[in-house]
Amino acid sequence: MLDVENSREARKIIRENEYTEQTAGTASKYVQGNLCILPSKYADDFAQFCKNNPKPCPLIGKGVKGNPYLPELGEIDIRTDVPQYRVWEKSNLIDEPYDIKKYWNDDLVTFVLGCSMSFELPLINAGIELQHITNNTIVPMYQTSIDCVPAGQFSGKLVVSMRPLNAKNTIKSIEISSQYPAVHGSPVHLGNPALIGIKDIMKPEYGNPPREIKKEEVPVFWACGVTPQSVLEKSKPDFCITHTPGKMLITDKLNSEFGKKKF
Amino acid sequence: MLDVENSREARKIIRENEYTEQTAGTASKYVQGNLCILPSKYADDFAQFCKNNPKPCPLIGKGVKGNPYLPELGEIDIRTDVPQYRVWEKSNLIDEPYDIKKYWNDDLVTFVLGCSMSFELPLINAGIELQHITNNTIVPMYQTSIDCVPAGQFSGKLVVSMRPLNAKNTIKSIEISSQYPAVHGSPVHLGNPALIGIKDIMKPEYGNPPREIKKEEVPVFWACGVTPQSVLEKSKPDFCITHTPGKMLITDKLNSEFGKKKF
Repeated sequence: MLDVENSREARKIIRENEYTEQTAGTASKYVQGNLCILPSKYADDFAQFCKNNPKPCPLIGKGVKGNPYLPELGEIDIRTDVPQYRVWEKSNLIDEPYDIKKYWNDDLVTFVLGCSMSFELPLINAGIELQHITNNTIVPMYQTSIDCVPAGQFSGKLVVSMRPLNAKNTIKSIEISSQYPAVHGSPVHLGNPALIGIKDIMKPEYGNPPREIKKEEVPVFWACGVTPQSVLEKSKPDFCITHTPGKMLITDKLNSEFGKKKF
Repeated sequence: MLDVENSREARKIIRENEYTEQTAGTASKYVQGNLCILPSKYADDFAQFCKNNPKPCPLIGKGVKGNPYLPELGEIDIRTDVPQYRVWEKSNLIDEPYDIKKYWNDDLVTFVLGCSMSFELPLINAGIELQHITNNTIVPMYQTSIDCVPAGQFSGKLVVSMRPLNAKNTIKSIEISSQYPAVHGSPVHLGNPALIGIKDIMKPEYGNPPREIKKEEVPVFWACGVTPQSVLEKSKPDFCITHTPGKMLITDKLNSEFGKKKF
């Protein structure tokens, strides 16, 4: 884990490619974001897709066409400030670079989506232990059978993140996360994974498998900002750049001022 | 069901002993209360017990010693305004009368505790079907293995009410009920009943058994205002009057103005 409390300092280290791993727990007071960069011809439809699906795709920032900076979220250069990127052509993963300087061009538009890390700190502060934080792994994420509401050419299945919690903490986590609608809000499912099309809870499509789910624990599922990646695989835009799951953009916005807003 | 929307009208019918059944769904905009009447020597300890256990025992009204009226909750005469009472001596049930005129005396103190019916209407308004309302039965209630925080001679196990809900409605019900701390608030447990000492979910200690719990449903448990009855059975005060479970005091306080307050 990159153990830095200041968001600018964390981004500086990431910018120099001195840290290329997951960002859970880093600068934990600050909002982290999921990334999706698209050619401008897709921008309107994708913005509408986010509007249609606010739980998985809470839009917290959008760049100007061709401009890699995101002043509303901090002193950010999107070409360098994410630990690792995924570059897609027609839904084929063609590269996983540590910066995207060579891929950036004047036609690209950046979308930043809120991320569950913003409500994980309040959960931890409420005394709830989160397995993936304790184990320093990436939260397990699953493709579900739940359809997103389509927009233009964008459609696809909802991706969820899962945290195993005992009953008391499940209830507490719902109370807390429901106060953060800008960063996925309350869970979309709990209990039997098969009911939302997850075949094997120990085999997530993204992130790391859970170490175990104890007898007294319930799997609790939140809408996940990796959903656009699953949608892009289906919608096949000519070109697209996302972050590598778990390796997020760290912004200068405080969770406390930002997470609770509705967009 | 007594299908009357006005609380005063409902109480008038109950006062005349023209209705002696359960009050779920009656005057549904109004707060209903659990009842506990005790000799004055127990009043301080019982008030402290309520303070110590706000989830099962949210105190919403208290009478003056020897006075059967509760002006802060409405034009109420506690001797007649509950459909059916239980009269206890040293924790032995000695009578289940429709009024308590002959038991009332100058030394008695009335306690009224909030009730889950106050959050059931918002749940129903949010599109959540509640099995016991649909079936016109009394919500199933169970003795658990969870200890209340004692006060003086009052101690005992928590009683919970149970509603089977699918995952989506479970999440929604937690979001909604957590906004009503004055009437039990969020659930205390969900899922495996054995974890809180419930041996057979089809055999509740109070109320009616659930008709069924479907495969996609989770049992969700809220702290219940019947807890004092279980506590009184253990604490054995010389004398005590409660309501018959499910047959509540209907007050003139609106759920909307009252349920959301913290006491």
